[in-house]
Amino acid sequence: MERQETQFELQEFVRKNVWQMRGYVPGEQPQGGKFIKLNTNENPYPPSPLATIPTQELGEKLRKYPDPFATAFRQQTAKQLDVSADQILCGNGSDEILGLIIRLFLEPGDIARWSSPTYLLYRTLIQMHGAIAEEVSYGPDWSLQPAFFQGSPKLVFLANPNSPSGTCFDLAALASIISRFRCPVVIDEAYADFAGQTAVDLIKDFPNLIVSRTLSKSYALAGLRFGYMVASEALIAQTHKIRDSYNCDAIATAIATAAVTDQQWLLANVQKIVSQRQSLQTHLTQLGFKVQPSQANFLWCQHPDFQAEDLYNQLKLRQILVRLMNYGEPFVGIRITVGTPEQNDVLIGQLKQVLGRS
Amino acid sequence: MERQETQFELQEFVRKNVWQMRGYVPGEQPQGGKFIKLNTNENPYPPSPLATIPTQELGEKLRKYPDPFATAFRQQTAKQLDVSADQILCGNGSDEILGLIIRLFLEPGDIARWSSPTYLLYRTLIQMHGAIAEEVSYGPDWSLQPAFFQGSPKLVFLANPNSPSGTCFDLAALASIISRFRCPVVIDEAYADFAGQTAVDLIKDFPNLIVSRTLSKSYALAGLRFGYMVASEALIAQTHKIRDSYNCDAIATAIATAAVTDQQWLLANVQKIVSQRQSLQTHLTQLGFKVQPSQANFLWCQHPDFQAEDLYNQLKLRQILVRLMNYGEPFVGIRITVGTPEQNDVLIGQLKQVLGRS
Repeated sequence: MERQETQFELQEFVRKNVWQMRGYVPGEQPQGGKFIKLNTNENPYPPSPLATIPTQELGEKLRKYPDPFATAFRQQTAKQLDVSADQILCGNGSDEILGLIIRLFLEPGDIARWSSPTYLLYRTLIQMHGAIAEEVSYGPDWSLQPAFFQGSPKLVFLANPNSPSGTCFDLAALASIISRFRCPVVIDEAYADFAGQTAVDLIKDFPNLIVSRTLSKSYALAGLRFGYMVASEALIAQTHKIRDSYNCDAIATAIATAAVTDQQWLLANVQKIVSQRQSLQTHLTQLGFKVQPSQANFLWCQHPDFQAEDLYNQLKLRQILVRLMNYGEPFVGIRITVGTPEQNDVLIGQLKQVLGRS
Repeated sequence: MERQETQFELQEFVRKNVWQMRGYVPGEQPQGGKFIKLNTNENPYPPSPLATIPTQELGEKLRKYPDPFATAFRQQTAKQLDVSADQILCGNGSDEILGLIIRLFLEPGDIARWSSPTYLLYRTLIQMHGAIAEEVSYGPDWSLQPAFFQGSPKLVFLANPNSPSGTCFDLAALASIISRFRCPVVIDEAYADFAGQTAVDLIKDFPNLIVSRTLSKSYALAGLRFGYMVASEALIAQTHKIRDSYNCDAIATAIATAAVTDQQWLLANVQKIVSQRQSLQTHLTQLGFKVQPSQANFLWCQHPDFQAEDLYNQLKLRQILVRLMNYGEPFVGIRITVGTPEQNDVLIGQLKQVLGRS
């Protein structure tokens, strides 16, 4: 065989915006150890027992290409949301949905807008696309500031409830926000089931509205990677053009479809989390934390006497993972996922030791 | 709640290249009926019995985010390919891998090169990115023409074996082809297991080489959406930056990892397909077809006396799906996936009727 040294400078060929960026760093996912994981907003309970696939169906589902339109899932979800199935497009997690929306609307150099701190992936996705991230700071009370509404962005993201704050605009406030933009507005509802609301009903009034949802949190299916977007039929039709035909695998689609049929499980699960969220907030407040009231499955906490990084490290030493977030003052804190009552008890017990309150 | 009519012209905001393009049309995937599906190159046999996941592990795997690096799969596959695990990056099907490579290297307006007819998705992916598809025709004998090597593409695709032809360059020929390009060259090995070769060994000589592989065909896992790329560690590290952290779900990763441990199943399966490929080619030739010798799991067939579209329609009426492909003369024909002996017998029997040879 012919052999030769090829001159190849990788940097010459990689896009500049990619070469210069750092990748997104996901929350720690220890594959071993006995950590209590309160860092990535997973649901602490196993998913609905319906979220499975009969073993005897597995081989044939694996062998064949999946339904490229996830029809069964869309029909089921359309009924629940009172929209048409053609208003829904499924993705490999809502992370893929967010990427698709960016690639649908933005040319490199176009401006995307959001208020920060929020989901860090928006920035990563915009950077990798070569578009421009125009981030506006939230007010210290997590209110949107006038700058959020100024200029001419081509795309707006708003996580509602927001992470890491857990704050949530109600539908009237959302309608008012969306009405101030001409461009597409994405309401990222990853945590909306814990708030008991959805902006999907606003789509009929706002054709520029896109609602992004996921089964990762409230359905306890983070491992499944299944999300979807809801928007006008015309907008969904354009998005289909840039989607991989088989972006959702057959097993994930079957499990997701089974999971959303079990609304009783969802409601019971959300009730448990909401109840624990309240209890955890009370205990943290008693320990001196400033805790932001949350409509999600996590709490944003700051302590006047202890640095967030110290708390994070001390908890990690004690086999408890929380999410350390440093967006610059006043947004330095830890985000704690609401766990089971047992996990929350261990957390509070360990925090008492760390804070010298035991 | 505030209500108002919003003026929103979708076309004003959708990227022009997307608005103007048609989406990729995947091969028909009938969800009902009793079709013999020989149109999308699925494996006719169920996957290895190891390609499963214990039910008792399902709940916890679903609840938690997956390992963002598919470490177990990469380690297993690295051993088999004699590369390092850091030379491998996994994706949601090799379709996602192809999209990642485009977004890693190409600015909108940059030129990508391939020889046509080949996998149509290259064109779709390039169009949706806003890059330029510079397609060069294969010769009538499926040889690469001088124009393939001219100009200054920023990225080159070569499916090997190629679809729809089933033709395959050996490693010496490949080395010679790759050596003529300065830019990254993607060898798409979706069907390479059926040819019993891989270009992975060439990576150490050609740092601009990227090999894309999938479990959809030879592992009978089209429903799983699991593919991967192999390249230099430096190139893989750049690609990680633009990958969704959780692009491979926990179930798919577990099943894929189990599947690749069963090399005995793979070899036996490939032997069965190759044997049937030979038999099918013989029968088709006896029926007057011009059949291109194939190293993949399908056959490219043209009949001097019958139009490809008629044959496709007649077979569909008889509940047999093959792939009609019209790339303009001399590349109009049908691509037939190699099925089980029983499926192939039915196909030949029906074709005899259609051709009036019974």
